[in-house]
Amino acid sequence: MPRKVIIVGAGPVGSLLGIFLAERGNTVEIYERRPDPRLAGDREGRSINLALSRRGFDALEPAGLKEEIMALATPMKGRVIHPVSGALGFQPYGKDDSEVIYAVSRGELNRALLTAAEARPGVTIHFDQRCMDVDVKAKHAVFRNEVTGISYHAEADTIFGADGSGSVVRLAMSRVPRISSSQQYIEYGYKELTIPAGPHGKFQFEKNALHIWPRGGYMLIALPNLDGSFTGTLFFPFEGEESFDTLSHHLAVDQFFDKVFSDAARLIPDLAHRFLANPTGALATIAVTPWNIDDSVAVIGDAAHGIVPFLGQGLNCALESVVLLVELLDRSQGDWSNGFKAFNQSRKADTDAVAEMALDNFVEMRDRVADAKFLLKKQVELQLEKRFYPRFIGRYAMIQFHRTPYGQALERGKINEKILSDLCKEIDSPSDLDWKSAEILIDKYFSKLG
Amino acid sequence: MPRKVIIVGAGPVGSLLGIFLAERGNTVEIYERRPDPRLAGDREGRSINLALSRRGFDALEPAGLKEEIMALATPMKGRVIHPVSGALGFQPYGKDDSEVIYAVSRGELNRALLTAAEARPGVTIHFDQRCMDVDVKAKHAVFRNEVTGISYHAEADTIFGADGSGSVVRLAMSRVPRISSSQQYIEYGYKELTIPAGPHGKFQFEKNALHIWPRGGYMLIALPNLDGSFTGTLFFPFEGEESFDTLSHHLAVDQFFDKVFSDAARLIPDLAHRFLANPTGALATIAVTPWNIDDSVAVIGDAAHGIVPFLGQGLNCALESVVLLVELLDRSQGDWSNGFKAFNQSRKADTDAVAEMALDNFVEMRDRVADAKFLLKKQVELQLEKRFYPRFIGRYAMIQFHRTPYGQALERGKINEKILSDLCKEIDSPSDLDWKSAEILIDKYFSKLG
Repeated sequence: MPRKVIIVGAGPVGSLLGIFLAERGNTVEIYERRPDPRLAGDREGRSINLALSRRGFDALEPAGLKEEIMALATPMKGRVIHPVSGALGFQPYGKDDSEVIYAVSRGELNRALLTAAEARPGVTIHFDQRCMDVDVKAKHAVFRNEVTGISYHAEADTIFGADGSGSVVRLAMSRVPRISSSQQYIEYGYKELTIPAGPHGKFQFEKNALHIWPRGGYMLIALPNLDGSFTGTLFFPFEGEESFDTLSHHLAVDQFFDKVFSDAARLIPDLAHRFLANPTGALATIAVTPWNIDDSVAVIGDAAHGIVPFLGQGLNCALESVVLLVELLDRSQGDWSNGFKAFNQSRKADTDAVAEMALDNFVEMRDRVADAKFLLKKQVELQLEKRFYPRFIGRYAMIQFHRTPYGQALERGKINEKILSDLCKEIDSPSDLDWKSAEILIDKYFSKLG
Repeated sequence: MPRKVIIVGAGPVGSLLGIFLAERGNTVEIYERRPDPRLAGDREGRSINLALSRRGFDALEPAGLKEEIMALATPMKGRVIHPVSGALGFQPYGKDDSEVIYAVSRGELNRALLTAAEARPGVTIHFDQRCMDVDVKAKHAVFRNEVTGISYHAEADTIFGADGSGSVVRLAMSRVPRISSSQQYIEYGYKELTIPAGPHGKFQFEKNALHIWPRGGYMLIALPNLDGSFTGTLFFPFEGEESFDTLSHHLAVDQFFDKVFSDAARLIPDLAHRFLANPTGALATIAVTPWNIDDSVAVIGDAAHGIVPFLGQGLNCALESVVLLVELLDRSQGDWSNGFKAFNQSRKADTDAVAEMALDNFVEMRDRVADAKFLLKKQVELQLEKRFYPRFIGRYAMIQFHRTPYGQALERGKINEKILSDLCKEIDSPSDLDWKSAEILIDKYFSKLG
């Protein structure tokens, strides 16, 4: 039986969920606290682009959006490492040229999804409507019209919170007994800084790469935009000797950037001013169990399982969750409580695993990528994958280029690490690799696995 | 400089905090959502009594309440174990008769604290006032008068949430970036059942003990009240074969209790009816980091670090926290932001440790207490403590009879467990104990410690 559904949040997750639910005959009302971004344009200084990979595109495909988004994307073939001084390094992501991840403008992606959602009969999007609270028992949400300031209720059979890591829907759920939840902030914040295009829209660094300035305790990264610019993001401690706390005036900012990020710093006009003017974001891992209260209220995406951005999986994971949830709601034959239950059971271990791997990847990006032994292992890993695929697949590949359940990627990744540590213990170059030992190890560990 | 302070919650924690802050010249407004319990009487079916021990009494002492509360308390010398069939067992808590814990009526304790608080100049308690929200930036709380239904704001220099594990103040704080928090429910609920006094107020079980019916996957416990009754509490899975879900009708309840708790069941009149009428409570571990936002808002007690009840430390720990916080606010010389910071730094590891030990003690109470090897270790532990005190102190003793910081109790407890496992491996009775080995082990592990 068709339902009336409210979705709080018209980001990519809420929009895609709206598309799928409307295609199944439900009436979908999406409420978004911001103005329509197709009219208002992007806000500067926050989350300007993101990395999409296999899981994200596979979720966009059934909505007919894969080609449209792919046309807006910039392939990134690997990491370009910027040391404090000396030559740049390059670390490919995949075992061949087809294995790349894609830089996509969050704004463009969102606008495409909004337009696609509105094109479905049964979908209405209400902008400038802030969700203030949800009454789980009464199955209604309280919204405030941000233009008029007037508050009102809206009822539905099911209310979805697709309202991101600071989800109001999740907070309302967490007042109900037996809803376990957690938000764990890390001691690092982030700040975005645009590296503009050069003359005639020329990219000032290698276009088809994700750039990293690994500095041990912190890092700068940059992803390409279509217009020749890069969105740079500094991940930096809030407190301590080198921190947002201490970089509190122009001189300190300029001196710091000149010293540790010199090649980027000279390309960013008015750097200190922008640094001090742009907001500093906080980063948290979010978890809730269960993700629903019977068939009244549920959270999805970052609101349900927000992760830190260091694996580039936040949105990929969230969009994959939308597809998996809708599949299970379909299979529940109208008993959505059961559909949600199946979703919790099948998906929770995977979102926990990707949360753990995302935290771990921060250490990899800011520190380990600059280490010779790490580089060697990465090179050997790709060689093993070329030779022994699909018996051996690298963890990064399982996450980005395949749809290996995250929990399985985490487990297999641990075994990979044992194999790689063993094989790389006494060699200094991939050419010294003992292929016979490699095959024996891979047989030993992966004979039972798929 | 004296402050205006709002405390949300007039339970034991809010009342004691109010007493200490008023004694330091601050103006204290306490808001409580329930009616004045001195007029309204206890509500039935929830948290009727609790176990107080050293930490709790040490916190009540500076408020001048130790003797008054002690007079209302029933000493419990140990655990009486009720097996499914066969003789009762007894496990003493301490190494001598002075080491006991005290059953106290939560209502009596609360009433005494309320009266003591109101006797302080500068303390006002507002009953029937429900906190709806806190605006951290504006430093005001929104309350609703539960009698008139009218909502209003109240401002303060500092707003304390002493509003328990479902704290509204904590929820408001958790909307602020960089406040990490979690609430983790366990899969067990609880239900209280009174075992009435016999004729002439006679206790129907041993008065000076905590009674346990350990059944592996669940348990019933009972604590004595002054009037000859016991408050029984069943800790039981919400779902599964034997669970609150399946005990959903009179016949099932009666059959179940007759089978597994027969000696208690025959003393509870109208058992099935009460069982089905009384509410089923949920149990969670609560954590927040940090516990404050500068000097504007802070949480204390269960609102800050709620734990499951199996160690009888929830209130003891909370009252100890009040004393420690007030000491650090005193030392901050008016800079409360700094005082709170010091409190977070010095106390957080201990509240995490007691949370872990409380979860662990559930397994001990419902399962391990019925195990012969466990009993032997407990006996040996007490003997070691008698002989080697204070070099060797049992974990339970550190928690209940001393004020060993919880983190230290957890660490020393792990060492104790190693020693006890080693000493008890090949003996069946404490009389077989090899004292020489014991002394060597204790020297080895505790020579560096205090």
